[in-house]
Amino acid sequence: MTAPRPPVLPVVQFRSQAGTIDLGWGHPHPAALPMDAWAEATHSALRRYGAAALTYGHAAGPGPLIEWLCERLAGVDAGAPEPDQVFVTAGASHALDLVASVLCRPGDVVLVDSPTYHLALRVVADHRVDTVPAPADEDGIDPAATAGLIRAITRQGRRVAMLYLVPTFNNPTGRSLPAQRRAALLAVAARTGVPVVEDDTYRELAYPAPAPASLFSGAEPGTVVRIGSFAKSVAPGLRLGWLTGARPLVAAVTARGYVDSGGGVNHAVALAMAEFAASGAYRRHVEAIRIRYRRQRDALVAAVRDELPQARFVVPGGGWFLWLRLPHPYGGTDLLPYAEAAGVSYVPGRQFFVADTGHRHLRLSYSMCDPETLAEGVRRLAGAYREAGLSSRSTPLPG
Amino acid sequence: MTAPRPPVLPVVQFRSQAGTIDLGWGHPHPAALPMDAWAEATHSALRRYGAAALTYGHAAGPGPLIEWLCERLAGVDAGAPEPDQVFVTAGASHALDLVASVLCRPGDVVLVDSPTYHLALRVVADHRVDTVPAPADEDGIDPAATAGLIRAITRQGRRVAMLYLVPTFNNPTGRSLPAQRRAALLAVAARTGVPVVEDDTYRELAYPAPAPASLFSGAEPGTVVRIGSFAKSVAPGLRLGWLTGARPLVAAVTARGYVDSGGGVNHAVALAMAEFAASGAYRRHVEAIRIRYRRQRDALVAAVRDELPQARFVVPGGGWFLWLRLPHPYGGTDLLPYAEAAGVSYVPGRQFFVADTGHRHLRLSYSMCDPETLAEGVRRLAGAYREAGLSSRSTPLPG
Repeated sequence: MTAPRPPVLPVVQFRSQAGTIDLGWGHPHPAALPMDAWAEATHSALRRYGAAALTYGHAAGPGPLIEWLCERLAGVDAGAPEPDQVFVTAGASHALDLVASVLCRPGDVVLVDSPTYHLALRVVADHRVDTVPAPADEDGIDPAATAGLIRAITRQGRRVAMLYLVPTFNNPTGRSLPAQRRAALLAVAARTGVPVVEDDTYRELAYPAPAPASLFSGAEPGTVVRIGSFAKSVAPGLRLGWLTGARPLVAAVTARGYVDSGGGVNHAVALAMAEFAASGAYRRHVEAIRIRYRRQRDALVAAVRDELPQARFVVPGGGWFLWLRLPHPYGGTDLLPYAEAAGVSYVPGRQFFVADTGHRHLRLSYSMCDPETLAEGVRRLAGAYREAGLSSRSTPLPG
Repeated sequence: MTAPRPPVLPVVQFRSQAGTIDLGWGHPHPAALPMDAWAEATHSALRRYGAAALTYGHAAGPGPLIEWLCERLAGVDAGAPEPDQVFVTAGASHALDLVASVLCRPGDVVLVDSPTYHLALRVVADHRVDTVPAPADEDGIDPAATAGLIRAITRQGRRVAMLYLVPTFNNPTGRSLPAQRRAALLAVAARTGVPVVEDDTYRELAYPAPAPASLFSGAEPGTVVRIGSFAKSVAPGLRLGWLTGARPLVAAVTARGYVDSGGGVNHAVALAMAEFAASGAYRRHVEAIRIRYRRQRDALVAAVRDELPQARFVVPGGGWFLWLRLPHPYGGTDLLPYAEAAGVSYVPGRQFFVADTGHRHLRLSYSMCDPETLAEGVRRLAGAYREAGLSSRSTPLPG
């Protein structure tokens, strides 16, 4: 008799709870994935490139994708790199990991926007650095105060390895850093020598396009590393993204042993993406999902205005997220069990801060659900909020 | 006027020199890539899994591929892991990088077989460790002497983080570690607590199958991490491989920030591979390439016997490489310019050693060329060897 095998492993990351409306995960709507066009692109790449589609690729990524990407970036703002400034990654998180592996040494300090993409905090932590929130307010990072913090850290004899932020349609806030602060932040980077890592994952999801100009487009050469992804604009399961920066940094990433010896990190998929782009499918797809996600954003915003008039928020100009603050002390963190009992889920705001704060905030994602489901989710959330306010079991938290 | 753009970037890693026969690169024969079957597998995955094929995947890799892999490994030797002991990677080099990121700390010592896969040395070096060759002779690593070396290093207060080797159809030697040494090496690992990283990339390319039993199959739990790849058995451009080991190690790899936040590293391709496997295409393809590469091996061996009778070698039982030693002092390192002038290329043996040795060795790859081309390449090499021996410009090197 052999021991029973463990249960069958899942196929995907997200598994919905029966009966729960999930406003937590930042995953695409299943109907917004380009199934047929992607099937055609993979076939097309195999036809066009033959054996070259399945053998070892150019380590930085295949030329046709990189060249198209440079043209695309030139079309959306002035932030077009030269082809030899681009490296194709397995997504934006992988790009951040690679950049950190080059820029960070154990014991360094990494500054991050606050709040910021919570999983970036985990990627950075793998590099044995101390993650410190940069001073920020509701408009985003505060450049002058950040310069002061860099000076203070440096005076203590510590090295600030990099500053990470999502300046355009920030995750979780949906907000974009104002133009004046962008310019001031670039001046700080140039003056202090601390590289800025600009996570530009949400650029294509602008309602309406175009998104604000990238930091990269206004930067002195070598001060900004920009990372991007096809996870939101096309499909996350492809595991495809990119980074662009100064040539020495791109060369150092390309020289990582596993990259160079393996011939890049996602060659066959990258060539299929080059076909997807060249055929016009990319442009059509992005236009279609802008309409879809804008409609979903509008539905969520309307529902919150109707059902949760107490909530403070700014309508996001792009991306997948709505960032709420609820005045009641049981706003974000302590509300979750009530929400889950009512059949709706979200991500507590606390998770997007390095410090123990944000307890009255919550992030709602409008990416996965149709407008009607979003509305029903907010009704349930509003009910949970009333219930939490009446309950004597809750303990108020600061923030 | 704008500056001219840099030249168009290449698609693939290997670019042949016009007129040169390349016996250097360990790349597949272009005709041995499963173009049609792979196109069908990608289509099939999109049909079967729908949106689940393109959204965020299970972080360790999709269940269907992992479960098939466990069955396949059970069929080739006793080294079958449980599904929760497997992690799907972007190739074997990426697997080694991930394992090193968990096992190594800066300043540790990593032991490696000698000679060994030269690009593994680069992957390991990225982790800021000292790479030290384990004692070895023509049969491969010497377990007793390795145990002594581990003791000596440990007595100096340093930590040996892991021991890396390719025990089956080693790159570059093509040889497999004898059974008795395998058992002794496993005993050393169990006694010293130094994990063995078994690079099992070439297992499927056995002439004839089956390959020797894996180290993993005979190991005490937790002492061996096994890594593998679909680069040789199917196609390198897919960037797909795997690792299997103790659950805590697999959990630590899976918890890497960029892996967990991205939903695995190569989800869509992994699901297509699951279809490729389930349809029988994998089994058929491996059987076909075994016949091809065995024929190419035989052609290279016959040509060397005819044209370079001075060369010492052992006929490899699998893999892609023939490891030669030439008696003349201008054997491997100094022969290369003569060979290239004669229109043939190879990898000098020196590159596979940590120490400055192996200068009379050379690695010939029989993977990329047809039998007739292999024979012509060896004729050119033999001519270059005669030429080098006559030349007075060469300076003999030791080893």
